[in-house]
Amino acid sequence: MTEPDSLRASGSSTDLDPPGVNQLFAVIAYGEVAAFYRLTDESRMAPDLASKIAIASMAASQMRHYEVLRDAMEAKGIDVLAAMEPYVKTLENYHSLTLPRTWLEAMVKAYIGDSLAADFYGEVVDSLSGESAAVLKSVLGTTGHSEFVIAQVRDAVKENSQQRNRLTLWGRRLLGEAITQAQHVLARHDELAELVMSGGAGLGNLNEFFERLQSAHAERMAVLGLG
Amino acid sequence: MTEPDSLRASGSSTDLDPPGVNQLFAVIAYGEVAAFYRLTDESRMAPDLASKIAIASMAASQMRHYEVLRDAMEAKGIDVLAAMEPYVKTLENYHSLTLPRTWLEAMVKAYIGDSLAADFYGEVVDSLSGESAAVLKSVLGTTGHSEFVIAQVRDAVKENSQQRNRLTLWGRRLLGEAITQAQHVLARHDELAELVMSGGAGLGNLNEFFERLQSAHAERMAVLGLG
Repeated sequence: MTEPDSLRASGSSTDLDPPGVNQLFAVIAYGEVAAFYRLTDESRMAPDLASKIAIASMAASQMRHYEVLRDAMEAKGIDVLAAMEPYVKTLENYHSLTLPRTWLEAMVKAYIGDSLAADFYGEVVDSLSGESAAVLKSVLGTTGHSEFVIAQVRDAVKENSQQRNRLTLWGRRLLGEAITQAQHVLARHDELAELVMSGGAGLGNLNEFFERLQSAHAERMAVLGLG
Repeated sequence: MTEPDSLRASGSSTDLDPPGVNQLFAVIAYGEVAAFYRLTDESRMAPDLASKIAIASMAASQMRHYEVLRDAMEAKGIDVLAAMEPYVKTLENYHSLTLPRTWLEAMVKAYIGDSLAADFYGEVVDSLSGESAAVLKSVLGTTGHSEFVIAQVRDAVKENSQQRNRLTLWGRRLLGEAITQAQHVLARHDELAELVMSGGAGLGNLNEFFERLQSAHAERMAVLGLG
C-alpha cells in the first residue's frame, strides 16, 4: 500500500520530530474517529434528507483525515490502535459530557468543537516542520462543510432570542469541557505537554494559550449569531 | 465548485446518454447514502475498536462515491435530492427487511449486498460509454475493504457448522430481497427498465440476468466459506 519513497521520507522526518509528535498524531487520529461516530449518532436528529446527507459528508471527511494520519503512522511503523488507546477515554468523556439534545446543539457543537480542535492543534503544528507538519496541516484544514452549519444556526437564532441565549450557554459549556479535557490530556502525557509548551508561538505560557482559544471561540460564536 | 470544463464535458455526454442514465445515477447515489447509514447503524455491534474503525472507513467510502455522483449530477443541472426521492422507499425497504441481528450477519450483508449492487449496476454500465460510464465505473469499483469482511466471516464459520448454516440462509434471504426490490424499481421506472433491457450484455432477457446474479452470488458465498 505504502510506496517505498514515502516510507523513506517519513523515516527521515521522524528523526527530526520532537518526542511527542507521535502522541499528537495519535490523539488527533482518535479524535477523528470519535468525531465520526459523534456526527453519525447526531444525524438521527437531522430535520430532513439534505441535512442528513450534509452531516454524513462531514463524518466521512473525518474518516478521510483519520486515514491520512493512520497511513503516516503506519509508515513510521507505529501500531495505530495501541497508540490511540491512551486518548480514547478523554475524548469519549468530552463527547459524553457534551451530548447535544437538539439538532441545533449538534450543529453548534460540530462547528465549535472542530474549530477548537483545529485551534489547539494548529498552534502546536506551527512549531513543527517537515513531513509531520505537512500531514497535520492537511487534516486540520477546513472541511468545507462549515457554511452548512453556519446557515442553519444563524437562521434559527435570528428572530428567536430564547434559542439564541440557550445556544450561547451551550457554546460556553463546549469551550469549558474542551479546555478541561485538554488539560487532563496534557497532565497525563509528558511528551505531548512538552511539545505544546515548547511551541514556537509562545506556548510556554499555557494561560495565554487558553486565553487565545477563548478569544477565537468568541469570534466564532459571533459568526453563528451567538454570544 | 465545478470547473467550466467539466460542466461542458458533462453537458456534451448527456446528449449521448440514453434516457434512464440520470435515473441510474440517482438510484445509485441514494443507495450510497442508505449504505452509509446502514453501516454506521450496524457498527454498534462491532466487537472491538479495530472493527468499528474498519466499518467507519467502509461507510466513509460510500459517501465518497455519493459525492462523485452528486457532483456529476449537479454538473448536468440535476436537482440531486429530487432525483433520488423516487428510490428512497425501495432502498429503505430493502434495508429494513434485512436488518442484521448479529455482527456476522452485518458483515455478510455488507459484502453480499454491495457486491450484488455492483453486479447489477455493472451489467448496465457495460452498455454505456463516455463520461457517464467512467463516473459509474469509478464508484462501482471495489472499496478495498472486502478483505476485512471475508476474514471475519471465514474465521467465524470455519469450525462452527451451526453458524455456517445460519449465515448461509441469511445470504439467500439477502439475495431474495435484493431481487424483489430491484424488480419493484424496474416495474415503476420505465426509462430505467428500458436502459437495463437494452444492455449490450444481453439484458433483453431479465430471467437470464437474474440467473447470472444468482450464480455470482453463489461464488461469493463460497468465498465467505458459506453455502
